Order: sequence, then structure tokens, then C-alpha cells
Amino acid sequence: MKLKLALLLACSQLFLKAQNQDSILLKKIYNIYLTQSKCYSNLEYLTTKIGPRLSGSKGAAEAVIWAKKAMYEAGADTVILQPCMVPHWERGAKEVCNLTSTKLKLNIKLNCTALGSSVATPANGVKARVIEVKSYDDLSDLGEKNIKGKIVFFNVFFNQAHIKTGTAYGETVKYRSKGASNAAKYGAVACIVRSMTSVADDEPHTGNMNYDTTICKTKIASIAISYKAADVLSESLIKDPNLEVFVKTNCKTLPDEPSFNVIGQINGTSKTNKYLVAGGHLDAWDNGQGAHDDGAGVVQCIEILRMYKLLGVKPKYNVRAIAFMNEENGLRGGEAYAKFAKENNEKHIAALETDAGGYTPRGFGVDTTNNLYNTVIKWEKLLQPYYCERFTKEGGGADLIALEKLGVPCIGFEPDTQRYFDIHHTAQDTFDKINKRELELGAAAIGALLHLLDLYYVPK
Amino acid sequence: MKLKLALLLACSQLFLKAQNQDSILLKKIYNIYLTQSKCYSNLEYLTTKIGPRLSGSKGAAEAVIWAKKAMYEAGADTVILQPCMVPHWERGAKEVCNLTSTKLKLNIKLNCTALGSSVATPANGVKARVIEVKSYDDLSDLGEKNIKGKIVFFNVFFNQAHIKTGTAYGETVKYRSKGASNAAKYGAVACIVRSMTSVADDEPHTGNMNYDTTICKTKIASIAISYKAADVLSESLIKDPNLEVFVKTNCKTLPDEPSFNVIGQINGTSKTNKYLVAGGHLDAWDNGQGAHDDGAGVVQCIEILRMYKLLGVKPKYNVRAIAFMNEENGLRGGEAYAKFAKENNEKHIAALETDAGGYTPRGFGVDTTNNLYNTVIKWEKLLQPYYCERFTKEGGGADLIALEKLGVPCIGFEPDTQRYFDIHHTAQDTFDKINKRELELGAAAIGALLHLLDLYYVPK
Repeated sequence: MKLKLALLLACSQLFLKAQNQDSILLKKIYNIYLTQSKCYSNLEYLTTKIGPRLSGSKGAAEAVIWAKKAMYEAGADTVILQPCMVPHWERGAKEVCNLTSTKLKLNIKLNCTALGSSVATPANGVKARVIEVKSYDDLSDLGEKNIKGKIVFFNVFFNQAHIKTGTAYGETVKYRSKGASNAAKYGAVACIVRSMTSVADDEPHTGNMNYDTTICKTKIASIAISYKAADVLSESLIKDPNLEVFVKTNCKTLPDEPSFNVIGQINGTSKTNKYLVAGGHLDAWDNGQGAHDDGAGVVQCIEILRMYKLLGVKPKYNVRAIAFMNEENGLRGGEAYAKFAKENNEKHIAALETDAGGYTPRGFGVDTTNNLYNTVIKWEKLLQPYYCERFTKEGGGADLIALEKLGVPCIGFEPDTQRYFDIHHTAQDTFDKINKRELELGAAAIGALLHLLDLYYVPK
Repeated sequence: MKLKLALLLACSQLFLKAQNQDSILLKKIYNIYLTQSKCYSNLEYLTTKIGPRLSGSKGAAEAVIWAKKAMYEAGADTVILQPCMVPHWERGAKEVCNLTSTKLKLNIKLNCTALGSSVATPANGVKARVIEVKSYDDLSDLGEKNIKGKIVFFNVFFNQAHIKTGTAYGETVKYRSKGASNAAKYGAVACIVRSMTSVADDEPHTGNMNYDTTICKTKIASIAISYKAADVLSESLIKDPNLEVFVKTNCKTLPDEPSFNVIGQINGTSKTNKYLVAGGHLDAWDNGQGAHDDGAGVVQCIEILRMYKLLGVKPKYNVRAIAFMNEENGLRGGEAYAKFAKENNEKHIAALETDAGGYTPRGFGVDTTNNLYNTVIKWEKLLQPYYCERFTKEGGGADLIALEKLGVPCIGFEPDTQRYFDIHHTAQDTFDKINKRELELGAAAIGALLHLLDLYYVPK
């Protein structure tokens, strides 16, 4: 009995010592991030010197060269440019959306943006009456007789009662992505969506759309109008259902372009073909600077390389910071990455994505597969002093979909969500919206979690 | 045994039902706040139509009238104007701080602000050599022989390694509050402090100072210079220790003025002299709009009155929203409130303060006295879906100090701290820095907690 007690005591002391060592390690990591990180200045360069960088654009090509340099500067042992072909969609001249009503004596410009991947209107634009709907059910209820020849206007608000803004986005984004095909099915000549946003301003929000040829083979132009413009259109329609809207967009899809994922690697001490990776996406919409979406994620991941350099330790596994290409309108980078990983028998222990903005950290979404969630949930207390201890049971993100399909357990970094959709996919997603400490604390949380995984995670 | 089991089962089912009812109640409260609240538009009015409102100023008097009206509009049964005499300090003409060095051929303007309650420099200003210190220990080490006739410059940075910015503020604010008296003790002719800030910009941060006549009877002028100006001064001092700085301030302290706390009350159903109160402060520094500090707190508390109106229920206790006067430079409002409470035998069940900005909620600091902490900690799970479940063991805030001394258990609302000290006490504390959802979520957390206390809190 005495021996048992002594053993138990020894074990619990060892456990406490290990916990204490982890606390000291985390403090050290956070100190590095809060006093020596370069993620803020890196992001300043990426957003203000390079700026917009949609796949296939000059900006995207410049961003690839910059990312490679930044990764070497941060301490990568090697930087890989991993080729992938990407879509090349161009907006062309600024879009126009005008509301005219003889009855109301109105001739108003509505702030608008073409949606990514949309076709252009005919060269002279389209002018037609407008039919407002709140859902796909509305659309089928109205049917071809009410819709044919008109512009369909999906006037669907964010539900502000949700606590996480992403929930509201999830509910409405289907109208952006497939509204055009669903409207075209009933003979609509163009598609307008209310911007997916939390805030009642005059900023139009772009984002990708897809033509679903299983729904309708006809491709019609699709735009988003600002929250305020949508209010104006909706209110005017009540007063004059016969008002007309003129839409002219000038976008086009050019042939695919060669591009790259940029991968900065720290070689692990175990010298196996095993990897722990964290990525954000390098491409960004053409109307802003891609500061929160997702320059923030890219610079946060690059900082992992510097963390190992400044800690003066090497990870057990090979650790990679990935700047994915083409998240916004194709996911070709994410797919290419998974394809290469499979072809080269790279065993991915876990993969993390950061693509929810450079806001103050809250926690992580974590896959329950391969013992991953059970591992990280034990670090709740450890991460509590850093306000980043909320673990939910679903991980990953768009760029990790292909890796997840290969069975890699994934993690999504989850910062506070309140401000993200105010500026998401708009001209307002600029560097001045970034708070240095929030960005750094997010980076630190990601670096800390990745290092803890390298030290302790035993996949099933 | 069977009976026991049945009882246990019945009890646990009752418990689950109660929990479920509380979840439904909280959802209802949050829905109200996120879809029907007026705190954002109220704050817009207070900050942009009234603006600066330092105690004794015209703005403060206007704010009192506005708060009374806003409280009635929100649904108060009664609004009390509770008189208190407040200090009346005026900045006068804009301050000047110039650095000149013949050796370095420099003549630079340093962005500065007089500290609240400071005396002015002599009418012609003071021009003197500067001695830089990092602490009070530095000051006593240097002694009168090195300090006499010079300007003392407290060049103390925020420690960015702290996770909560308030910790760094707590470490440095002593130089703002008592730097002048400590410097004057050794014969200094003026006092300059590096602005208390997280961000490396050119904005000077004001804030109150006090002359401590137990340290030194002489009162010297005291100013803060911006982070960047402090860098310039410090770097220049290395190159030319004989450089001179000219300081001219024009502030004065006038006789005390009559003012008011504004108290909106919902009468409780129990018809006792018992109170649950929540307050922020109505006064704000003269250089900005007092949006986060503390217009946000005031409008959040006013929203409690509307919450009860929209819920269609009455609290058991009398519930009060308090707009305290004179938090910034005197705490006279907080003191007057406690004095009146005592004189009128008002039993305060608990008191909450919100004065840390209108940022995204994190949780509450809660006093451990009178069973308060033990009560609220049980609501951790209940508040988790609202991201406001962190309870730490110390409550209150400056305006509640006097109540706390009477034995009232206090709570401090704790939003995320990262951005607060970027704009604290500066011209940048303006309405455009407020995010509507963050403000409303803070208000909802406060309202929800207060209502839960009314329903369930049993003081010891």
C-alpha cells in the first residue's frame, strides 16, 4: 500500500511538472509572438505593396515570389513552389447597376459588384423589371410565368440573432453561389443578391458563384448590391413593382493560368516523411487588399517558421507553413496540395487552416478523427490564460477539404467572428482594419497548438 | 430505495427543465438585444451630437439631460437626477511641446496633451533640459543633483508580452498619476510621460493625474507625449543629452460645479428597498467623443431598462441603470451614489460596472463575497453559447469602489481587451471605432447576467 501511494505521488508530481513545463513553454512562445513577430509588417507589405491578388493576376504572381522570400526570411529550411493551374477571371471595367422608375421619378445608381466567375451581361447590358424573392421556395412558387424576362433579386438578410456571424453567412451564401442558375431556370435575364454582410452600409460584397448546369444550362450575369442599395431596391419595388433595373458587367473568364502554392518547411528531427501543416490562402479578391481574408492567415502561418528559429528547437515532424493559391474561386491549390501529398506518400499527422480573419482568438474547431480532438481538449486549461481555449468538434476549412478526404484530421483556427463579415470580400478589407495584437495573438495560438501537437499528439 | 431513486430522478428532471428554461430565456434576451436594441443609435447621439463631456463642462450638462430622456424612452419607471459636486478642470488652448537641439539641428513639435488635473506651466512655458527615467527607482538614484531644474521624462513602455492589455496599463499608469509629484520632489520643473498605449502611433493619451502633497508640495505641469514622440525624444537624448524641451500648457482648475448621476429605475415586484444596479460613466475626456470610454457602458446599461420592457416582465428587485458622473477625474459620482444609498437604507444586492469598452464580450470579474461568485460560476455553461462565460474572481470598477466599501458585492464586465488602449483617452475614441454587434453582445451579456441575478441570486 505504501509503495502504491509513493508511486501515485511520484506519478502525480511528474504530471504536474510536465504541466508546469508546458505552461512555461507557452509563455515563451507567446512572448516571442508578442515581442518579436513580423506578421504585422509582413501583412503590411502583402496588402499595401502587392494588394489585390486574385488567381491568375499579376498580384497573385507577385505574392508567390514575396511569400517564398518571406518564408526563407522567417527561417524555413526549404521553400517549395508547388505548381497548380488556376482559373483566371477578370472583372474588367467597373460594373453598373441603375434603378429607374418613371412613376417614382427615380434614376439611382446602386452600388454593386460582379460576382466572381460570373459571365458578363451582353455588351449593352440588360434592362428589365425585377422580381424580389426571399428564398428558392419563393422562386419555384412564382415560376416561369412571373420570372421570365426579369431580373431576380435575392433579398435575403443576415439573421442578426445568430451569435456567430458565420452561421448567418452559411444560411445566405447559397443565393450568391447558385442563385443565378436557379433564377435562369425560370427564364431570368440576370441575378442580383443582397450582399452577405452583418452591417447596414453601402459596400457591395463580392465572392464566388458557380453555374450549376444540372439546374440550368443558361448562364446569366450575377451581381451583389450593397445592403443599403438592396434596401432602396426593395422599398422602391413596393412603391413601383414595374420599375426597371439596368445591369452592365464586363467580366470574363480567360484560360487557366499556371500558379503555385508556396510551402515553407522546417525539417523535423525524426527524418520521416511525416508532416504537421498550417495554411492560409494567398489569393484575395480584386476589390480590396485581402487583409483579413486571408493575408492574415498567410502571415500567421509564416510566423510558425520564425517561432522554431527563435525557440531554437526543431520539431519532431516536418512542419510546413502553406500559402495556398486559389481558395476564393476554385480551390485548385488545396486540391493540388492533397494530390502531391498522396503521390509522394507524405503522411500528414494533422493540418490546420486559418481563414477567418486576423481577429482576437477564441479557439479552434477540431476533427474528432484519429484521436485529435481528445488530444487537444486536454490543453483547455493550458490555453485559458491566452483566451484561446474553446475547442469545438469540427475542424478544417476550404483549403483542407481535399486533405480531409485523404483521412487527415483537420483543425480550423476560430477567432472572434463579429467583425469579419462587415468587410468580407469588399474594398474595405484593408490593412488598416488589422489590429497588431489581435493578429499576433492569433498567430501565437496557432504556433502554440502546432508545437504542442508536435510534442504530444499520438494519432490513432 | 426505489422511492429514493424516483425522487432523485424527479429532482434531476426538474433541474434539467429549469436549465432548459434558462437557455430559452437567454436566447430570448439575446434576440432582443441583437434585433431591437437601441444602444448603437443611442451611442451615436451621445458621441457625435454631444461629444466630449468632461465633468463641469457644457457637454456633461447636455449628457445628463440626454441620459434622462434616453432612460425614459427605454422604459424606466422613474429617472432620478442625483446631485453631486464635481471638479471643473479645463484644458484651455492646445498644449505645445517642442524639442530643440542645436547640436542635432532639430526643432521638432512633439504631439502632446496636458494630463487632467494638472496645473499649467508658467504663462511663458518652461524650457529646460530633459532627464529620462524608466522608474521611480531611477528617479531616486539620480537624485536632486541630476534632476533639479530639468524636465523629467518617464519613458515607460507597455509590456506587450501581457495577454490582457489592462495589466500593462496597471503597471505604467502610476507614472501618469503621481509622476509629477515624484519628479517635483527632486526639483523638476515639468513632467512628461510616454502615453499609456499598446500601439506605436502619434496619438497622445490624456488621463487624470493627482498631486500628492505628502510626496511634494510643489505642483509642476504634467503632460503625456505620443508613443512616436517619446521615441523621438528618447533617441534624440542619446545623441544630445543637452537638448532642450519647451512645454506650454494652459489648463486650469475652476471651482467645483454642480452635476448629477442619472439613474433609471424599473420598480421591482417585491416592493422592497432592495436594488440590483449596473452602471457606466457619462463623463468623458475632452479630446475625443468618449465612445468606448465610456459611452458604450452607459448605453449598454440603459438597454437593461428596454430589455425588461420588451421581455414584458418586471424584476423582483428594483433594477437601476446608472450613468455615473465624474469617473475620469474625481469619482465624485460613485461616491455620491454610495452615500445616498447608505443614507436611504437602500440594500444593494449586487452592482455591476461596464467601463472597459464596447468590445466583444469575454466574461465578468465577480466578487467572491456574499455568495456572488459561487452563484454566477454555475452559469458558465449557460453563457458559453454567447461567448461570455469567463468568470474571474475580482469584480467591480472605479465607480463601484464606494459601494464595495459598504459591503456590496460587485461585478465588472470584461470585454476583449486588445484594442482598448489603442484609443483610450485620445482623440481617436470616436463612434466609428464601435462595432454594432460587439456593443450589443456586451449589452446582452450584462442584461442577461443581471436578470439571472434577479431570478436566482441568494446573498449570504
